[in-house]
Amino acid sequence: MKLVCTKDNLKKGLFAVSRVVGSGNSLAVLNNILLKTDQGRLKLSSTNLEIGVNTWIGGKVEEEGALTVPARLINEYITNLPTDKVTMSVKDTTLSLESENYHTNIRGLSSEDFPLIPQVLDEAYTKIDSEELRKALSETVWASSQNETQPEISGIFMAFEEGKLRLAATDRYRLAERMVVLDQPVSASREAIVPSRTVMELYKILGSSKGMVEIYFSETQVLFKFDETEIISRLIDGNYPDYRQIIPKEFKTEAGLSKDDLTHALKAASLFAPESNNVQISVDKDGVTVNASSAQAGENVTKVSAKVTGEKNTATFNFRYMLDCLNNLAEPKVVFRMINDASPAQIVPEGRDNYLYIVMPIKL
Amino acid sequence: MKLVCTKDNLKKGLFAVSRVVGSGNSLAVLNNILLKTDQGRLKLSSTNLEIGVNTWIGGKVEEEGALTVPARLINEYITNLPTDKVTMSVKDTTLSLESENYHTNIRGLSSEDFPLIPQVLDEAYTKIDSEELRKALSETVWASSQNETQPEISGIFMAFEEGKLRLAATDRYRLAERMVVLDQPVSASREAIVPSRTVMELYKILGSSKGMVEIYFSETQVLFKFDETEIISRLIDGNYPDYRQIIPKEFKTEAGLSKDDLTHALKAASLFAPESNNVQISVDKDGVTVNASSAQAGENVTKVSAKVTGEKNTATFNFRYMLDCLNNLAEPKVVFRMINDASPAQIVPEGRDNYLYIVMPIKL
Repeated sequence: MKLVCTKDNLKKGLFAVSRVVGSGNSLAVLNNILLKTDQGRLKLSSTNLEIGVNTWIGGKVEEEGALTVPARLINEYITNLPTDKVTMSVKDTTLSLESENYHTNIRGLSSEDFPLIPQVLDEAYTKIDSEELRKALSETVWASSQNETQPEISGIFMAFEEGKLRLAATDRYRLAERMVVLDQPVSASREAIVPSRTVMELYKILGSSKGMVEIYFSETQVLFKFDETEIISRLIDGNYPDYRQIIPKEFKTEAGLSKDDLTHALKAASLFAPESNNVQISVDKDGVTVNASSAQAGENVTKVSAKVTGEKNTATFNFRYMLDCLNNLAEPKVVFRMINDASPAQIVPEGRDNYLYIVMPIKL
Repeated sequence: MKLVCTKDNLKKGLFAVSRVVGSGNSLAVLNNILLKTDQGRLKLSSTNLEIGVNTWIGGKVEEEGALTVPARLINEYITNLPTDKVTMSVKDTTLSLESENYHTNIRGLSSEDFPLIPQVLDEAYTKIDSEELRKALSETVWASSQNETQPEISGIFMAFEEGKLRLAATDRYRLAERMVVLDQPVSASREAIVPSRTVMELYKILGSSKGMVEIYFSETQVLFKFDETEIISRLIDGNYPDYRQIIPKEFKTEAGLSKDDLTHALKAASLFAPESNNVQISVDKDGVTVNASSAQAGENVTKVSAKVTGEKNTATFNFRYMLDCLNNLAEPKVVFRMINDASPAQIVPEGRDNYLYIVMPIKL
């Protein structure tokens, strides 16, 4: 292998593929990135056996070839490099990097030992605007279960129906649901559960990418493709819970209020809920009151002005579940809805109907 | 106690005193900050029994009093508070904080249980411009020993002689020395060893402070006073090593080169010195060459252009010791001087003669 490329392109390519690679894998090749010439470009690949990432960068290929090298080492080396261009060449299992005054050999491992990243060959199933998808993921992905014993809710549910994608994430105590308009309506509906880790990687690698994300499916895999990058992941096998039946249709109490005011009030109260995470939220005609108390720390009561309709109401919530939602909404105002101290409450951004968040009160 | 003050003043005061407070002390009052009305202002104090910090903020005192409250809790509470003003009042051992819609009680401990912070009553021994002092500390403090079994070199040496302060820090493998012009010459020379932790706190609390730092001494204590803040610390008992005798007077080789070029070269080499930290530096008429190799990772050689005089020379250094110095110099160019592979080498910023750094080569 021999090729010349710019440092910036190489850095960008390494950024995309490096995040899924570990550094302490007992199978050494899993700590590595595969570099391979591919139709006049350099293809970089990484995998953790659950997620695979491929990306292509431009370069002047002078000789075909391939090698895997430690992800962390080449990443740190290229990040530090002050030069504009890099000449890469492979001899046996050594990668040479030459650029101006910098002469470096990195020991690698044969490309033949690198796990095969599955290919998803079908035509694109659908397309989504990448900024829209990124926003939708930021409003949902954190709500999924961290508990690996419930595999089906440890992923993000994706239901494609005609011109829409419905995203959902839940851990059974709270639920985030987001609708996204597809750029290319689907001909046949489809449901899938994508591992949270895959969705987090997709979110991070998408970064400030503009343009379209193409989605491909096989029986057991999903592939997201944008710019010059592909993320391939296994799907989670199982039935996603029929969560829509628990979304209340009607509420008894509604309060429209400033997201920042509510956030500050919850954070103040959180300091007085050091062990339980429990804060009490009360709504009456004067507004919303947030309070918490602890025998050791003390107590806090904060009034938040709100436009309230309906009955007065009080319930106890995990403040982290409230903040997770508020921290990920862009709107300055939110609507908070309640039924009673044992039924799901709801948060939605004011003036937008493609998102809802449901949170269960804590039974004391 | 009752007083009204601005949130910003309180936040600033808490910042100054909070850094020395732990949160897991078995003696609970050491996790706390002492709040005390003092001649029409609020005095905030903290101590870890080695270092004490006092700071004063303006406020409208309506009733005298004092209480200690958990540092972390009040800090986080005030940092989050979106209001402009805070009314504080004490009843028994509870501090009430009232501001607009926020009503909070924090459980504290009696001010009588708070350790006495020693007073250093003498007149100011000398004065130093605070920006000058901060720069001088940034160039030296990290060079002191982390090894508590050598208490005298775990501190920063300060020698006041007429119109100058000489600062030194060493761990026996490297040495940083900095001269600072005093704003008020001393009438009697004095030497002291100040704990590194004290100097680090001073450095951080100094922040962007302008104006003068006054220095006071007692037999066993030093006090730094600036703006509305005092840091009091014990001194380290012992004799600082007579380090000046090991500073070479003459060198065989001198290379003037770009600080950034040398830094990049050292960082590139560091990736190929994962266990030993050893990098080889060679100087000849063509410039400076930095290289490292490891059986596992590979090898790197970087040429750095330099203006070289004297003999050619090669030695091995701990790259961290080189980078510690380079990372803390503001100048774009440095001068690197060598004798041989067993004698101290030197780094100085080009065009400034109040600083020198000595580093021992590694014997292979």
